[in-house]
Amino acid sequence: MSDTREQILEQIKVQGDLVRQLKAAKESKEKTAPSGGGRVSSSGAPAQRQQQQQPQKQQQAQEQQQHEQLHQIDEEVARLLALKATLGGDAAPTNLKFTLKTPKGTRDYGPQQMTLRQGVLDKIVQVFKRHGGEAIDTPVFELKEVLTGKYGEDSKLIYDLKDQGGEILSMRYDLTVPLARYLAMNKISSIKRYHIAKVYRRDNPAMTKGRYREFYQCDFDIAGTYDPMLPDAECVKIVSEILDTLDIGDYVIKLNHRQLLDGMFQACGVPADSFRTICSAVDKLDKSPWADVRKEMVDEKGLDEAAADRIGEYVRLSGGAELVEQLLADEKLKAVPNAVKGLEGMKQLLKYCSIFGLDKRVSFDLSLARGLDYYTGVIYEGVLKGESATVASPAKTSQQNGEQANEPATVGSVAGGGRYDNLVGMFDPRGKAVPCVGVSIGVERIFSVLEARAAASGLKLRTSDVEVYVASAHKGLHEQRLKVLNLLWDAGVKAEHSYKLNPKLLVQLQHCEEHQIPLVVVLGDAELAQGLVKLREVTTREETNVKLKDLVAEIRRRQQSSA
Amino acid sequence: MSDTREQILEQIKVQGDLVRQLKAAKESKEKTAPSGGGRVSSSGAPAQRQQQQQPQKQQQAQEQQQHEQLHQIDEEVARLLALKATLGGDAAPTNLKFTLKTPKGTRDYGPQQMTLRQGVLDKIVQVFKRHGGEAIDTPVFELKEVLTGKYGEDSKLIYDLKDQGGEILSMRYDLTVPLARYLAMNKISSIKRYHIAKVYRRDNPAMTKGRYREFYQCDFDIAGTYDPMLPDAECVKIVSEILDTLDIGDYVIKLNHRQLLDGMFQACGVPADSFRTICSAVDKLDKSPWADVRKEMVDEKGLDEAAADRIGEYVRLSGGAELVEQLLADEKLKAVPNAVKGLEGMKQLLKYCSIFGLDKRVSFDLSLARGLDYYTGVIYEGVLKGESATVASPAKTSQQNGEQANEPATVGSVAGGGRYDNLVGMFDPRGKAVPCVGVSIGVERIFSVLEARAAASGLKLRTSDVEVYVASAHKGLHEQRLKVLNLLWDAGVKAEHSYKLNPKLLVQLQHCEEHQIPLVVVLGDAELAQGLVKLREVTTREETNVKLKDLVAEIRRRQQSSA
Repeated sequence: MSDTREQILEQIKVQGDLVRQLKAAKESKEKTAPSGGGRVSSSGAPAQRQQQQQPQKQQQAQEQQQHEQLHQIDEEVARLLALKATLGGDAAPTNLKFTLKTPKGTRDYGPQQMTLRQGVLDKIVQVFKRHGGEAIDTPVFELKEVLTGKYGEDSKLIYDLKDQGGEILSMRYDLTVPLARYLAMNKISSIKRYHIAKVYRRDNPAMTKGRYREFYQCDFDIAGTYDPMLPDAECVKIVSEILDTLDIGDYVIKLNHRQLLDGMFQACGVPADSFRTICSAVDKLDKSPWADVRKEMVDEKGLDEAAADRIGEYVRLSGGAELVEQLLADEKLKAVPNAVKGLEGMKQLLKYCSIFGLDKRVSFDLSLARGLDYYTGVIYEGVLKGESATVASPAKTSQQNGEQANEPATVGSVAGGGRYDNLVGMFDPRGKAVPCVGVSIGVERIFSVLEARAAASGLKLRTSDVEVYVASAHKGLHEQRLKVLNLLWDAGVKAEHSYKLNPKLLVQLQHCEEHQIPLVVVLGDAELAQGLVKLREVTTREETNVKLKDLVAEIRRRQQSSA
Repeated sequence: MSDTREQILEQIKVQGDLVRQLKAAKESKEKTAPSGGGRVSSSGAPAQRQQQQQPQKQQQAQEQQQHEQLHQIDEEVARLLALKATLGGDAAPTNLKFTLKTPKGTRDYGPQQMTLRQGVLDKIVQVFKRHGGEAIDTPVFELKEVLTGKYGEDSKLIYDLKDQGGEILSMRYDLTVPLARYLAMNKISSIKRYHIAKVYRRDNPAMTKGRYREFYQCDFDIAGTYDPMLPDAECVKIVSEILDTLDIGDYVIKLNHRQLLDGMFQACGVPADSFRTICSAVDKLDKSPWADVRKEMVDEKGLDEAAADRIGEYVRLSGGAELVEQLLADEKLKAVPNAVKGLEGMKQLLKYCSIFGLDKRVSFDLSLARGLDYYTGVIYEGVLKGESATVASPAKTSQQNGEQANEPATVGSVAGGGRYDNLVGMFDPRGKAVPCVGVSIGVERIFSVLEARAAASGLKLRTSDVEVYVASAHKGLHEQRLKVLNLLWDAGVKAEHSYKLNPKLLVQLQHCEEHQIPLVVVLGDAELAQGLVKLREVTTREETNVKLKDLVAEIRRRQQSSA
């Protein structure tokens, strides 16, 4: 620290120029390099596919060069930072060298959004607790190995942390795998837990539709060895209670069963080792027409055309208990034990759903497949219908997701889940399984629906709970204000003031109207001399003198009568 | 997907062995390498200092080699992951190849801990709201450049994300810098916001003391141009309200002022460009005796011995308003404008604190310095005293922090903050400043205190809110149970059952006693035939027959009379 501030500032300038030069050189090289080269995926699979055309040697040399370049940039940036650090808090930059933004696919939540969100989350937690849920929390990152091999193709979307010496870490991709890790690690064989937290997916964000790279998940899961369909039906009930309490419009909960899907694939002549990949294709039916899905099955996944057509017959079916009976009588299906087991499960589930008053809410739907690999039994998805869904995605364009423009807008999956009996066993050294079933509420989409609705209504949510504003009628009263504020705070009253020594009365009253603060205590020398203050109702502008010693009681009285 | 499952499993085995071999080779090299080399800090400064003895060329070659090695491991790991990914959810590993744990310095929170935490956070939020706080939230990571140059030496503790193509990101280190970025980006010139979220520091964890790499911060900040000390005093009041409401024992809130510190350093003959580094040394006084701090100032930071001794005279002073007067009369200080300004600020602050009833709680303490560089005015710290603090750190050893074993155990800073008027301006392209003052509650330490206390008392917190358990007295009643549960849930009653078709009555009743569920509805054919159910109080074991149609009302009546 023997250099003067001016010398350091000069060094920062020189070093900053060097870093910018290096970065510019790297960028210009990348622009001329083949398209795949600039973005090497660490998860391997998709990147390898892209780069098969390139001879491997050349590719490695290129990567090596990039690596060295990045390393050099890192080093010079580190020197720059070290220089800046020596200046500490005084280093106000002359001008900002980068765009001020949040990372791609993320956003800040301001007070308005937080108020809406907190309201939604509170209602969801209320439902979770009504069903005996206990809260847990896990770290935002996990050892990379914990996430490895759990998400199939989507593994490429996992955020990795930089290796800074120590463990190799990745950001959590969902709350289900961390739950499984938690259960196996602590040898917990039964729990009913909820977990509300952010998860991370390096996906292409579609923010207007409520799809982000950082987003909340609200999960409820029942782990333990129980009798068939009893916990499963309760999860469906939970979805309906949540969608009812949030009052976001008409919805349907689609139900299906992985065993039935597998049995159906078998009955249609799909080879056993293609079940999962054909299942992934079926999963796209909510966004793509059958013709496209069939094409994917036949052209990309090599499925026999006749088999695809047989699947096509089944996946257009949906209904209730009568459909189960119809399928139990189906010649092809009844020959396949998996299909029969799945159908018997569905029968039981529909029975319990009926007891829970959900006949009108659930639909047994053979096109429901769900993306994730780890499901082993019941699967379900809560979907907004018609108008509710269109509110959900105002910016939705039908071209984007390959839908026909005149098809009914049944987008908007807002909840989903299912049974996954083998996931916990993947973490147990001896493979000990803990059967689980759970549901994840798609709160971001729900927020989008409600935000759009709030914006349309023009209503402004109150973002603070202030009950009383303490104002001065004239100059010189700031200490008196502090005394009254202290009295109110100590009594638990939510109160604030202007933080100004001598604020104008009008400005103070305007603040209350803008922020919908219901009551104002106005201080003035004349009243204070008599031990009095003015209590003013903001909406009616009515004012009453109140004894200072009765102030808290009077405020509480008014709050109760207006509640 | 043309390979069979067995072939892929074999390939995974071979690839897995290769990766392990590479990692082992890297580790054995690191063990023989010089100590500094294995862990290169990206922030530069401290790493550079450590490595000055090594010739730079040799160092660079070594780093380059390490880099290549890491790169090769990354590539092979990616291949391994890709192979595993092709197996999807079916890839139940025959045995787990890694230790099941959370990342270093992090932990899961189980239901017991979550219940305690939620209780603490709720109380803190209540105080924040009492003072008109609005909630905001920001992403867990920021563009790396946002964090650059804000934390001085501590920048080396920032977690970076891997460059996976795209923006260069880092995990947030605190909630203050993201707030400043949020204010500048959205051109917000005044807000009273609170933010409760996890932050990340790649520090050496001391988990028994409540120091983690992932931990909660609870921040309240007042941004805006206001009159001196009015928002600042309110922050001190907030600290006291929170520590009072949490009831964690006796505490003191130490107060000081950065301008006074700078003025005092000037008066003692410290050169202006050493103010911050001498301030960092003073900051260690809460953990180290004066002799050590003096040694650091003189030997490491090159301060004149006489100047150090003059500082030593001041930093042992603490007191109240009378100390301000004494220092305002001090010959050396009154000649320095910064010192006088700082003292006048302290005088005003102490006056307001007195109005807020905090005379017994605050202490003007010249040894308080605070670590972060960005403070520009008042600084404060809430510290647990005596017994409260010893509960806080049962594993604390005096050797570790260089304290005398027989000194009073005044560890346990549980809140801290101050004024930072220039931070927002660092993000504004034209340097427009927004003055801010705020406080951060050290909830992890508070949790540690309360967890230790709960463990000592042997009390078990209830982790679910279940009000009613629905039990079967005999076989064949599961559908009846579901009907009653549905009735209860639809009425908003928190209820659960066994998820078994035919559970034993005794097991069900034991579950209620273990989980402190207050009421049980016992179903039996005899009662059901008459439209009745048994309602049992778990603690008294008293049973009454209740009409099913009156059940909800009767439950509500009992809850109210027992509340």
